[in-house]
Amino acid sequence: MLYAVIMAGGSGTRFWPESRRKRPKQLLRISGDKSMIRLTVERILPAIPYERVMVVTGVAHAQEIRRELPELLEEMLVEEPLGRNTAPCIALAAHKLIKNDPDAIMAVLPADHLIGREDEFLGALSAGAELAASGDFLITYGIVPNRPETGFGYIRLGRVCADMGTAKAYEAAGFVEKPDHATALDYVASGQYLWNGGMFVWQARAVLKAIENHAPDLSRAVAAIAEHLNTSEESAAVRRVYQGLQSESIDKAVMEKAGNVLCLPLDADWNDVGSWAALSDVWPPDKEGNCSQGEVVFLDSRECVVSSPHKVTALIGAEDLIVVDTPDALMICRRDQAQDVRRLRELLKERGYDHLL
Amino acid sequence: MLYAVIMAGGSGTRFWPESRRKRPKQLLRISGDKSMIRLTVERILPAIPYERVMVVTGVAHAQEIRRELPELLEEMLVEEPLGRNTAPCIALAAHKLIKNDPDAIMAVLPADHLIGREDEFLGALSAGAELAASGDFLITYGIVPNRPETGFGYIRLGRVCADMGTAKAYEAAGFVEKPDHATALDYVASGQYLWNGGMFVWQARAVLKAIENHAPDLSRAVAAIAEHLNTSEESAAVRRVYQGLQSESIDKAVMEKAGNVLCLPLDADWNDVGSWAALSDVWPPDKEGNCSQGEVVFLDSRECVVSSPHKVTALIGAEDLIVVDTPDALMICRRDQAQDVRRLRELLKERGYDHLL
Repeated sequence: MLYAVIMAGGSGTRFWPESRRKRPKQLLRISGDKSMIRLTVERILPAIPYERVMVVTGVAHAQEIRRELPELLEEMLVEEPLGRNTAPCIALAAHKLIKNDPDAIMAVLPADHLIGREDEFLGALSAGAELAASGDFLITYGIVPNRPETGFGYIRLGRVCADMGTAKAYEAAGFVEKPDHATALDYVASGQYLWNGGMFVWQARAVLKAIENHAPDLSRAVAAIAEHLNTSEESAAVRRVYQGLQSESIDKAVMEKAGNVLCLPLDADWNDVGSWAALSDVWPPDKEGNCSQGEVVFLDSRECVVSSPHKVTALIGAEDLIVVDTPDALMICRRDQAQDVRRLRELLKERGYDHLL
Repeated sequence: MLYAVIMAGGSGTRFWPESRRKRPKQLLRISGDKSMIRLTVERILPAIPYERVMVVTGVAHAQEIRRELPELLEEMLVEEPLGRNTAPCIALAAHKLIKNDPDAIMAVLPADHLIGREDEFLGALSAGAELAASGDFLITYGIVPNRPETGFGYIRLGRVCADMGTAKAYEAAGFVEKPDHATALDYVASGQYLWNGGMFVWQARAVLKAIENHAPDLSRAVAAIAEHLNTSEESAAVRRVYQGLQSESIDKAVMEKAGNVLCLPLDADWNDVGSWAALSDVWPPDKEGNCSQGEVVFLDSRECVVSSPHKVTALIGAEDLIVVDTPDALMICRRDQAQDVRRLRELLKERGYDHLL
């Protein structure tokens, strides 16, 4: 059976002031009336019913996730006491699924990405599930790039391993770090490199085997939780074990080492919404390239991104600006410095505004 | 006796969103805890006691002025039913003063300017009053320019007419319109041109005589109010007559035509605070030239002016921006487009935001 494991552990530091410790990106209504996590779940429901949707999140956000997803089964909400990156999260989820369903196939999906063409996505999900059912492959989705992005890692494609009619699966011949601009141009031109979007599908059994082979410490630690999963001891056991875990991404811990990794291309208007600047690809722009949410009036302004749901907002002569207004904090940021929201957080901490983070 | 006539008729369109129809610039606390009009009155109190301070304002703002200036005598608050520029305002005030004191000398002062060096100002006020007492001169203050400003009119100085020790009075040889930049440079370099700051001192009798000579229609119309002034009929009479008045500035109506105009230089760190951009000369800047009111955090930002008293505000990579936050409206404006706040008001009206103006 196919399950979804939605990783909702993000702390959303790049969407300040809208995101806060208590309200990370996956809980924001960035692209309309629904939160990112709600959109993520609704996107997969045509393929995976609610009973087979699992969400892994931090304890601090569990209550809010329950409110966002009232249909989620309580036993399918997994609370991590600490964020330890994706490898522990995936190991835990795999153990939990396999305990009830030894043949479980899991699609691992971030809770805070957007996908424009949902049919394409569902097709790729179905192809991935089919491929996973046929063997112990580790399947990662490679996003077909539409620009020489330097902010993502890339996956180098090898030979075609499976041709499933509508989809081809490739050997993942290498994972490469964020490239410089010239390299990124070469990658995109070559057609042989896809973005590493952090979405996976595999048998729970297959990923646990791979973790055992390539990350034995993690494997042993998480195995100690297994017997308590789906019992009243679960959360105490998780808490105990998580204290001793290292932060590790599944890419570093497993994917970059394993030999049985396949890559399925995904061309579905994917957007990881990595910063406020990314909203310019999500919100419909006006003639001058301004995008906004709220009542915003632009005069002589171009290429701005404005989120101001609480008051009338006017821009005069503004170019390439991000403006985000919230009831207790306002941020104005040059568009090409959207990543510096993280630096700003440090500065705010120093200045005694920790309560606003 | 020396009286102050404070002209508080401004509608403050250039300080949106802080200024509104109901809260024009003279009522704003732009430079600290006190409103502009309160600062204006307190500045003159060492020379002119409250009993001799008159304020002329629009009916819509009278109540707010009473709240700001509880010490003001009720009979010294004059309400204009309509704004008709400075000439009718001054004619009305002169009639009202002369009725009780035929020798009244009146210093006419805008309610919404700032003056940094108050001693200099009081010295010039005293010199002006002395000069006015000595004859029927119309004395206008000329602001000693510190930059080639193209936003003001200039007064060309003629020969020295009176040397009063600390102050020299010049013949006002001409009033010139806002110059272009090259002309403004010449003006400032010559030392013969001062800014027209719209501050005057004269005998009430002298200005009424000048109005009679140079603006006979206005003179006749306002004379019809005279008998009702300081009676219960005053406001009805004012209302009746104002309906038929033309908008006229005292400069156009009288000063540019009269032959008995003197100019007293004023070098007292004067600032007409003509737009948000002018606050950069009022609020103390940080090392990067940013000025702000409120809790504002600047990261990689330069030469910005931020008024945000209600929430923490952060700027990242911003340059030459004006940011003004209020509870129901937020404005972000390129600093060199601060004058376009007026155009914005038109746009807001079109878009149905008249209630915010």
